Amino acid sequence: MLKKIADVIKKAKNVIILPHKSADGDCLGSAFALRLILEQTGKNASVILEEENPKLCGILFGTQPQALNGFDMAIAVDCGDIERLGNRREIFNSCPVTVNIDHHGTNDGFARYNYVDSNSAATGQIIYELMEFLGAVLTLEIANNLYVAISSDTGCFAYSNTTAKTHNIAAKLLETGINHSEINEELFGKNSMAKIMLMRDALNSFETYDDGKIAVVSITREQIKTSGAAEEDTGGLINLPRSLETAMVAICLKESLEDDFVKVGFRSNSVDVSEIAKSLGGGGHVRASGCNIKGSIESVKKAVLKATRKVL
Amino acid sequence: MLKKIADVIKKAKNVIILPHKSADGDCLGSAFALRLILEQTGKNASVILEEENPKLCGILFGTQPQALNGFDMAIAVDCGDIERLGNRREIFNSCPVTVNIDHHGTNDGFARYNYVDSNSAATGQIIYELMEFLGAVLTLEIANNLYVAISSDTGCFAYSNTTAKTHNIAAKLLETGINHSEINEELFGKNSMAKIMLMRDALNSFETYDDGKIAVVSITREQIKTSGAAEEDTGGLINLPRSLETAMVAICLKESLEDDFVKVGFRSNSVDVSEIAKSLGGGGHVRASGCNIKGSIESVKKAVLKATRKVL
Repeated sequence: MLKKIADVIKKAKNVIILPHKSADGDCLGSAFALRLILEQTGKNASVILEEENPKLCGILFGTQPQALNGFDMAIAVDCGDIERLGNRREIFNSCPVTVNIDHHGTNDGFARYNYVDSNSAATGQIIYELMEFLGAVLTLEIANNLYVAISSDTGCFAYSNTTAKTHNIAAKLLETGINHSEINEELFGKNSMAKIMLMRDALNSFETYDDGKIAVVSITREQIKTSGAAEEDTGGLINLPRSLETAMVAICLKESLEDDFVKVGFRSNSVDVSEIAKSLGGGGHVRASGCNIKGSIESVKKAVLKATRKVL
Repeated sequence: MLKKIADVIKKAKNVIILPHKSADGDCLGSAFALRLILEQTGKNASVILEEENPKLCGILFGTQPQALNGFDMAIAVDCGDIERLGNRREIFNSCPVTVNIDHHGTNDGFARYNYVDSNSAATGQIIYELMEFLGAVLTLEIANNLYVAISSDTGCFAYSNTTAKTHNIAAKLLETGINHSEINEELFGKNSMAKIMLMRDALNSFETYDDGKIAVVSITREQIKTSGAAEEDTGGLINLPRSLETAMVAICLKESLEDDFVKVGFRSNSVDVSEIAKSLGGGGHVRASGCNIKGSIESVKKAVLKATRKVL
């Protein structure tokens, strides 16, 4: 099946590659690796991004712009559905041949040729295998980009999506001499000043209940504004209460900037937190869920603790 | 050479295995994996620890105690020198045959039979190879223990000591069906309440200088006492200033509990911080160094900033 996609791609001459909007490490690493692979096999290839100059481009190769006139193929990379192409949806649809390469199990196959492997930890893992079918040789530059992709989506091989195949591919990538520790430092070791301020504010609000079984942090809209934080800076704060060794349920309360609601996040390694969220009008997964509740942090906290204690 | 060690071990009947004191994931995972390997090949094997019930034993197999009378071989695991055996040094030396398996480049070969491979990211990696020479079969239990060892010492494959071989071995370990994400959660995702309190205190002291090129945190002896922190809880605080994306030099100032000195740590990815530490009477490596200076946090900070600015 992947061989079939490779055969389709082999026929193209000018290819545009489209990673999803709000580009992350997997889609960027995959897209720029694919560009280098296609160029190595004698094609013209260009990556078109939704956002200008994503920060991660600093650790990727092949990111210099290349104007392409008259492309005959568009490849969507790491896009679960066509909406993820954002404003570039028209570019995609106007192409004579469209290809969709992805690892999201929910992918609806929106292109003419689709390859979706939800067993792949990252789309970068699929691009590695595609490279072999295309007859390209793994260079340090391609390996660097694929490592960014795979390490991003596996949390540096920590998450449960990592498989033996992921590690076998990583071994091949390291053999090229890439500086993997520097990549990981960039991917996971860096915080903005805004993020550090929010971590401080969250830790100052840190509370535990029921002998440490419940750990809660909260962030006010004033604190978010003062920090100058972007949405991505507020995302990981729930990892602070989650990291408490006694915590069975971690809760993060975040005042919304748009309305008078509080955004509530739940995490657990042992309790079904989707039940808690559902009982409060929200939803999500067994281990990660959330809901929005109107009110002050104090009143919402009261309601959330009551609902949490019902499942503990 | 490792085959020779395997041949020596094959002749033993009752083996005691000694990981180093202040036991960490690599020495514990390696020691209990080796125990299971030796038992599988028909020997009696026991692990003797310096500290009682290390927390990590909760995620290892084969940790039940086994009394052994009349052992004919002692194997030191992950010990750079014989001092690392602590109070168990006599047990080691009283054995008819002694073996030393380690990956520290500074290992002085203190046993009768020594195998030191400083290219191995972890001693667990050597134990994996030894297993093959001993003719043992990789079980889920052995794989679990070796994964704890290897993931611990490589920071979950992030550090520069990780090689292609490390990933190839990890692939074999995952093939047995171990729950690697749970192991990584235990190894890296957990904080004590004391650690969280110290992180809060450190973030409340967070300061930057020279347009964010220098980032500093400090912790008072009062804060350390109040948190009830153990030495291991105070170690990682320098990662907070180090994570600031603009920081070239990260500094952590920690009041000593024993005297009126301040313990100063330096980290950098771009500047030689051993020079800074040396100029203040300390020492260390290019990327990580430290010194001890008598005085208050404020006076020490002044001296440290002055010395840091000289190398920036």
